Amino acid sequence: MKGIGYSIVAVITLATALTYSGLAPARVDGGPASVLGNKLPEGYRDWKLISVAHEAGKLNDLRAVLGNDIAIKAYREGKLLFPDGAIIARLAWKYTASEENNSVFGGPQSFVAGDPTNVQFMVKDSKKYAATGGWGYTQFNDGVAVEVSALTGCYGCHVPVKARDYLFTRYAP
Amino acid sequence: MKGIGYSIVAVITLATALTYSGLAPARVDGGPASVLGNKLPEGYRDWKLISVAHEAGKLNDLRAVLGNDIAIKAYREGKLLFPDGAIIARLAWKYTASEENNSVFGGPQSFVAGDPTNVQFMVKDSKKYAATGGWGYTQFNDGVAVEVSALTGCYGCHVPVKARDYLFTRYAP
Repeated sequence: MKGIGYSIVAVITLATALTYSGLAPARVDGGPASVLGNKLPEGYRDWKLISVAHEAGKLNDLRAVLGNDIAIKAYREGKLLFPDGAIIARLAWKYTASEENNSVFGGPQSFVAGDPTNVQFMVKDSKKYAATGGWGYTQFNDGVAVEVSALTGCYGCHVPVKARDYLFTRYAP
Repeated sequence: MKGIGYSIVAVITLATALTYSGLAPARVDGGPASVLGNKLPEGYRDWKLISVAHEAGKLNDLRAVLGNDIAIKAYREGKLLFPDGAIIARLAWKYTASEENNSVFGGPQSFVAGDPTNVQFMVKDSKKYAATGGWGYTQFNDGVAVEVSALTGCYGCHVPVKARDYLFTRYAP
């Protein structure tokens, strides 16, 4: 049983890793009702900044994490559990060397946001998404929703940070 | 004269490089009236996102560039010259490996915003700052304004992108 357990963990880990890396999330016809109704939330590009990051490795992107007003308020107040209605957006762009900047500053030191890759959202609804820690997960490629099975997709990777309400990103002051 | 010219360029380049790297901008008593009145503009942390970047090298920071509504509108409309009143904020944090994220994703691939370093602003006032391309430059360390001589400080490095109204950062869609 222990071997089977490890195998299951390995499969889930692989699935979540692939999903995270952008390889796995294919459109699933007849899947569960999609988070955010398959539509990019209006005005999300205007949301306030939570933090920034560089995800190296295969993705190799620069990312900004934005939040709607409910999410920002929860972050700034240090809430342990985010209230329903909180939405967090992760935007990402290809990690791109800026030859223009480097020529001014004299070295290969400047990396900027290149072409956009995809946008992911976490949507808090403690009842609707009770099975995945109260968060629904979705991703948009070029503005088109990509259905991701929440349990085998994003959720699995977020479980290790359950104590912070499944949020990897900390607020950057 | 050519030699002297090169020397002047070298000195200015060094001065601007030092300023850019955060080494040079010391408080200058009796300097020019400070941009933004030596006060962080109210609510700048709520401004909308223009783009993100990783400045490697000595600074080695992750940065977010935010804009007030006038600046964001100009960026989105592709304005060649930004109108008076536009303000651009560059926030930066130490480029920090996230052991927590790496342990989940299985490799040293995640870099996040660590401690904040400083916040820099460009303020458009074509008359007041006519000598420096219409932009006033300022920097705050821990919320305290650091006076930087605009000509020998930030401005020099921005001249190569004069054609884009002295703005290095492009809007990230």
